[in-house]
Amino acid sequence: MSQHDPPLALPALSLADVYPGSRKVYVGDGDVRVPMREIALSGEEPTLRVYDTSGPEGHDVGEGLPPLRAPWIERRGDVESAGEPAAPPAGLHRGRARRRGTGRVTQLHYARRGDVTPEMEFVALREGFEPEFVRDEIASGRAILPANINHPETEPMAIGRRFLVKINANIGNSAIGSSIADEVAKLRWAALWGADTVMDLSTGADIHATREWILRNSAVPVGTVPIYQALEKVGGRPEDLTWSVYRETLIEQAEQGVDYMTVHAGVLLRFIPLTAQRVTGIVSRGGSILAKWCLAHHEENFLYTHYREICEILQAYDVAFSLGDGLRPGAIADANDAAQFGELEVQGELTRIAWEYDVQVMNEGPGHVPMHLIKENVDRQMTWCHEAPFYTLGPLTTDIAPGYDHLTSAIGAAMIGWYGTAMLCYVTPKEHLGLPDREDVKAGVVAYKIAAHAADLAKGHPRASAWDDAMSKARFEFRWEDQFRLSLDPATARAYHDATLPAEGAKTAHFCSMCGPKFCAMELTQQLREYAEAKGVSDGEAVRLGMAEKSEEFRRKPDLYPTGS
Amino acid sequence: MSQHDPPLALPALSLADVYPGSRKVYVGDGDVRVPMREIALSGEEPTLRVYDTSGPEGHDVGEGLPPLRAPWIERRGDVESAGEPAAPPAGLHRGRARRRGTGRVTQLHYARRGDVTPEMEFVALREGFEPEFVRDEIASGRAILPANINHPETEPMAIGRRFLVKINANIGNSAIGSSIADEVAKLRWAALWGADTVMDLSTGADIHATREWILRNSAVPVGTVPIYQALEKVGGRPEDLTWSVYRETLIEQAEQGVDYMTVHAGVLLRFIPLTAQRVTGIVSRGGSILAKWCLAHHEENFLYTHYREICEILQAYDVAFSLGDGLRPGAIADANDAAQFGELEVQGELTRIAWEYDVQVMNEGPGHVPMHLIKENVDRQMTWCHEAPFYTLGPLTTDIAPGYDHLTSAIGAAMIGWYGTAMLCYVTPKEHLGLPDREDVKAGVVAYKIAAHAADLAKGHPRASAWDDAMSKARFEFRWEDQFRLSLDPATARAYHDATLPAEGAKTAHFCSMCGPKFCAMELTQQLREYAEAKGVSDGEAVRLGMAEKSEEFRRKPDLYPTGS
Repeated sequence: MSQHDPPLALPALSLADVYPGSRKVYVGDGDVRVPMREIALSGEEPTLRVYDTSGPEGHDVGEGLPPLRAPWIERRGDVESAGEPAAPPAGLHRGRARRRGTGRVTQLHYARRGDVTPEMEFVALREGFEPEFVRDEIASGRAILPANINHPETEPMAIGRRFLVKINANIGNSAIGSSIADEVAKLRWAALWGADTVMDLSTGADIHATREWILRNSAVPVGTVPIYQALEKVGGRPEDLTWSVYRETLIEQAEQGVDYMTVHAGVLLRFIPLTAQRVTGIVSRGGSILAKWCLAHHEENFLYTHYREICEILQAYDVAFSLGDGLRPGAIADANDAAQFGELEVQGELTRIAWEYDVQVMNEGPGHVPMHLIKENVDRQMTWCHEAPFYTLGPLTTDIAPGYDHLTSAIGAAMIGWYGTAMLCYVTPKEHLGLPDREDVKAGVVAYKIAAHAADLAKGHPRASAWDDAMSKARFEFRWEDQFRLSLDPATARAYHDATLPAEGAKTAHFCSMCGPKFCAMELTQQLREYAEAKGVSDGEAVRLGMAEKSEEFRRKPDLYPTGS
Repeated sequence: MSQHDPPLALPALSLADVYPGSRKVYVGDGDVRVPMREIALSGEEPTLRVYDTSGPEGHDVGEGLPPLRAPWIERRGDVESAGEPAAPPAGLHRGRARRRGTGRVTQLHYARRGDVTPEMEFVALREGFEPEFVRDEIASGRAILPANINHPETEPMAIGRRFLVKINANIGNSAIGSSIADEVAKLRWAALWGADTVMDLSTGADIHATREWILRNSAVPVGTVPIYQALEKVGGRPEDLTWSVYRETLIEQAEQGVDYMTVHAGVLLRFIPLTAQRVTGIVSRGGSILAKWCLAHHEENFLYTHYREICEILQAYDVAFSLGDGLRPGAIADANDAAQFGELEVQGELTRIAWEYDVQVMNEGPGHVPMHLIKENVDRQMTWCHEAPFYTLGPLTTDIAPGYDHLTSAIGAAMIGWYGTAMLCYVTPKEHLGLPDREDVKAGVVAYKIAAHAADLAKGHPRASAWDDAMSKARFEFRWEDQFRLSLDPATARAYHDATLPAEGAKTAHFCSMCGPKFCAMELTQQLREYAEAKGVSDGEAVRLGMAEKSEEFRRKPDLYPTGS
């Protein structure tokens, strides 16, 4: 099988494979039907519906996903057919759209003129807000809804600090290895575990074809860093990059359907010397490519000088900016320095310009930052970048734990999410060491789901705590099967339980291996409740009024408090 | 081999086995010689010395560790021999000491009268402070130095918010399984990875013998929860507990050498009704034992009513209080409620009383707490408990990830450590699911070392950032072997690197698998530096002055910026 063949050999994991007891349901009607994962619980317990990113099931990877948004885009009447791509991978024949004339086809444009699009309705149902709230957040620039007119396969989602905190998983091959099939498998795998977007960071061969396979099979928005492909086109020599090569690449990727693009337009010539004394200099690949170009030519960054032209291209397809942080710190010692904040301030200027064009914008952030310096990043970003959504990599809160950077960064990610960051770019255990495999992708996504959810709880997102409460109630009532079903990773939870108490009976036992059968902490409150119920009074009242009586009863009938097994 | 035989079959892992390139060195002189782990780096790089908890090497587990503190204790002249224990496990013959008369033999007593003990000198060298600073922190109650006169094997350490954040690992068998040998192995394993103290939470058979093996082989302070053993003595029936059984247990454990004890004296009768409406009621085992006792007798908690007698016992051996939080929240929904804070306020009252007796005190804290409610815990504890050290379990920042609770809680632990918590009780991935095995203990300790170190960086502990800087410098200079040596878990870091680039040559390559050989971000700053060096100017200056020139040079001699492999 060549790299251009459809990657049909992939295991087609469904929701039910990794989430036993869950099924996909749809809320809404007409053609705005939003997927949720419904978790069935035992007995009389109500089902719990949670946000679902896993995408439509049962489709042939070789044919791609159905174009959910196609009728909505068509109905707006502001795009027309641009024919078919010149050489589509076999099976993936998909028409391309382009805007009619010079009309603006961005969600920001629609929101500003007061239209609630089906995409916004979808997001409203998905997050439990009013459609008008979603429109207003997008119109103000506080949120983006990444939705390229040529990526109709997306299930719309919003990135903004009043919405659920989102997470991104990076995939993509490099010069070192991995095939297209691997990358499509990683995409689906990451989305199954909860990735809200993926970035395709491919740098090796077949960048275009890899991206086509990913886009056609992705129900989550796809981001890229176009300068990576532009660099390939000039043989990997940054100094040979030109605006014209970059522009051609931007258009190629925008036409293909990329939903957001990292553009390092804030890496200005004057900031580069500020990085020379750093412990780890420039660690962003895009940042160093541009720094190298600037130094080689002794000219200002061409992404900055051609920025308005970039806005025009992105506007034509509704590609959102992810303004890159090419000078982000790569070490605790370099956090919050002049180079980093210089670039962030320029991001603010660039954000305003993009908004002139109705182009949606988010701002990328660090990196490596000790805990006490995290909040300053959010505060400055919020002020300088006019409340555009912040999108951060971690941050890692220490440098000393390679092999555990999903964890060093989940700490920073949870905090920065709470402080107001809208999307968290995951870090896998292999960060700084190697390329993530399937298990690393899962570990990274799960760690970041935890961070994002912890942030949602702390921010008070109206839908966040129901999940915790359902889990804790199941825990309190010793509903072990329900606990597994409610876990972010049911199979792991079950396996850990089985490691100590493998017997099937232990799944219904009113104890666990921590305290053993003879005495269990949570049993006590259970018994208090049963007592209250029998007396027909509230729990607290029962305890207050009945303690003396209960004490008597206890002495008479020790079985009320069974302490044996 | 019966459970009472010496567990000689344990693998005797040494420092060098898990930390290649490290060796144990000692700083200080006389009989105050403090172990450090010295990490050798390549080339001209200076070695890095880091805090070491692994304990003396090369000793037979059947004979226990050498009694490091014995001469210091003896020199103070305030204790006398109490003979040998009645039935010591084979090989572990060790004399017991008791105070002379009614003298106070606690580090708090010595500190208050102005004495800098060898234990305090040891801590000062270990953390890089002046001995007088250590004495003052202990005298004020802001720090404790757990050091039972019958646990001379300890290498002294301090728990207080101006010191490095410490971590505790829970070990101990339960009714479900594991042998004495397993527990001693876990102790040594946990200390090797960085546990600063261990708590022996054994609840099954052989509690006394297990504890003897642990104490005699532990160079870190050992904590217990005496009520667990007292409960065993009354057949597991909380209502049959009496002050007399508890008192006898306290004395037994204090004589054996336990350094700190969890005492749930703040679980008052009036707080119990406040837990009835909680989502998960009472989740602390100790808390529920006492709640059950209170309800059964309709009397006030006997640990509260006999508290001054407990102080007298602890005073006689220098056992520190770890005032238990029996009403800590077990769910996000229950965080920071009236029951929890009611008990915390009583802990403050109990702290003051213990200090009257010169007994050292720390306060235990939660539990499950969402991020935005964490700081309130520290603020209240600091105020109500008069700045006594805070010792928290996590807290877990969400309930939905069983199987990953080392991570959900490392987020909360790092934050609460930064806010001022002195010691973090680890949580393993098996929390809520089963008993931790060897790998779980390691995962818990490493996660908590990360949290504690992240907190040390954020607090600005003078010795914290050197480790991060050494790592980042090694990363920047592509010293892969040094990066592995500097990692908290060298074998894992190396294995992850090898998974993508196994060849030995890749260990010295100036690239990694993330960007591949063709282009590497960090190479750029490297080249800037070399350029500066050649010109004999500072880095920043070189860049500012030389950019135009460099641009020229670059065009003439493209090898200056090698972009090929």
